Amino acid sequence: MLVRSDSMIKVGFQGVSGSFSEEALFNYFANDIETIAFHTFEDVFIGVEKGDILYGILPIENSSTGAISDVYDLLNQYNLYIVGEKYIKVRHNLLGVKNSQLSDIKEVYSHPQAFEQSKDYLNQFTNWKLIPYYNTAKSAEYISQLNNKEIAAIGSRKASELYHLNLLAENINSNKKNTTRFVVVGSSLEINQDFNKISMVISTHHKAGALFHVLKNFAENKLNLLKIESRPIKHTPWEYYFYIDFEGHLEDPIVKDAIAHLEKDCTHFKLLGHYKGELQL
Amino acid sequence: MLVRSDSMIKVGFQGVSGSFSEEALFNYFANDIETIAFHTFEDVFIGVEKGDILYGILPIENSSTGAISDVYDLLNQYNLYIVGEKYIKVRHNLLGVKNSQLSDIKEVYSHPQAFEQSKDYLNQFTNWKLIPYYNTAKSAEYISQLNNKEIAAIGSRKASELYHLNLLAENINSNKKNTTRFVVVGSSLEINQDFNKISMVISTHHKAGALFHVLKNFAENKLNLLKIESRPIKHTPWEYYFYIDFEGHLEDPIVKDAIAHLEKDCTHFKLLGHYKGELQL
Repeated sequence: MLVRSDSMIKVGFQGVSGSFSEEALFNYFANDIETIAFHTFEDVFIGVEKGDILYGILPIENSSTGAISDVYDLLNQYNLYIVGEKYIKVRHNLLGVKNSQLSDIKEVYSHPQAFEQSKDYLNQFTNWKLIPYYNTAKSAEYISQLNNKEIAAIGSRKASELYHLNLLAENINSNKKNTTRFVVVGSSLEINQDFNKISMVISTHHKAGALFHVLKNFAENKLNLLKIESRPIKHTPWEYYFYIDFEGHLEDPIVKDAIAHLEKDCTHFKLLGHYKGELQL
Repeated sequence: MLVRSDSMIKVGFQGVSGSFSEEALFNYFANDIETIAFHTFEDVFIGVEKGDILYGILPIENSSTGAISDVYDLLNQYNLYIVGEKYIKVRHNLLGVKNSQLSDIKEVYSHPQAFEQSKDYLNQFTNWKLIPYYNTAKSAEYISQLNNKEIAAIGSRKASELYHLNLLAENINSNKKNTTRFVVVGSSLEINQDFNKISMVISTHHKAGALFHVLKNFAENKLNLLKIESRPIKHTPWEYYFYIDFEGHLEDPIVKDAIAHLEKDCTHFKLLGHYKGELQL
């Protein structure tokens, strides 16, 4: 990771303070950082490209709901590189204003997905009115402004600290394993001895067995394929980009050879990044 | 296709009249059918399971935006079978009320994605106010109720007929190839001589090369793999279901053998359907 000596490094995320993206940033960067919130995922890519921020962090996949397609498409579109990854457990909490108690609550604000993910807990309180709101962090901010003991929000622990809210119930999400994978992107490819994960996007000729021949290359070289995700090629219906993650180091001759074959065999090949894979949860 | 002699067959779709799902139904079924609109994708599955409808139709993939994940998940969850498929070109039109002309228009209602997909056309009319609405069919219905010459909608040709609207401009979508693939589901597996496509969902052991070994089976038997789509297994983070479409007939000994191997090698195997593939556009 590059560290500028003159000042804190600037890093960007999409959303508002107290979001899981911001939590991922604080967890990934050990150093002091200055965080900048962007409105859209694409704004984060543009921010890195223009040099307004040194790195950006983006959610790429959730263990329950799957790929975040827009981020996959942007990785292919922009010339940035993945330089790191971070897994963050999605932990929802019931947040109330100061001095509020569980028995006071009549209304709860949150993102509809947070209601869905906390269904088993919420089913105990059939009298609560659930009001959908923009996202969990904005819900926490909003109820802190309302400052009404009867009104709670579902959000992160970080949001409770930020907006001075009580944790009325912790870890209320039904699926305790629900995790989001984030990637850190920068303007250059980075290389380090302990890097062990490579991401790329390819497309193959539209004929029988083409994808198989590409994967064969990995299997024969005993390169461990970690993930394959397909996305449509917009102007060529029913042809696909395949996003592939595999274990390896870019300077390993076997990896170099496999990549050389890929560049020859594929109609599209783009190296998306090289980084240290976090142990998967 | 089963046809009941006593009355018209009942078929279901998600959405409202004038939607692309309804258009797909009318295009797929040559016979007289009675169509029933359902609120959600899952309601269509439940409708078939309960016998309220004989078949349901569901959008499964768009050539520009990719897989419709909820439908993939429901196919794995419910014990229904794909018995057919239909490709429908997404053609947007500018619709106005009777006697309206292009020069009258000041406001346009539609789904945000229809605005996005008709961007190049709309860019010519910078003075138009674009108002996001539930979906294209509901927008057409709404402007027909308003009955104001200055207010148009973006929607299908079918919606223009249904709500007695003028076609002020036809086929205004930028990407002329934008197509949605629909699948027809029923309660039983169907077999016919001219069927040539098989859909299934599998999951493999979480180890190096496991997916490769499954695909090898296809390649060695010269079975043409048409599509592979991965979806997370909800309660087992970072393990996946792979949805696979391939060319073949279920009674072909080579296909029978390949499927027998899959059932042995995979931790999860489910046959999702057998049907006649439409020539891809």
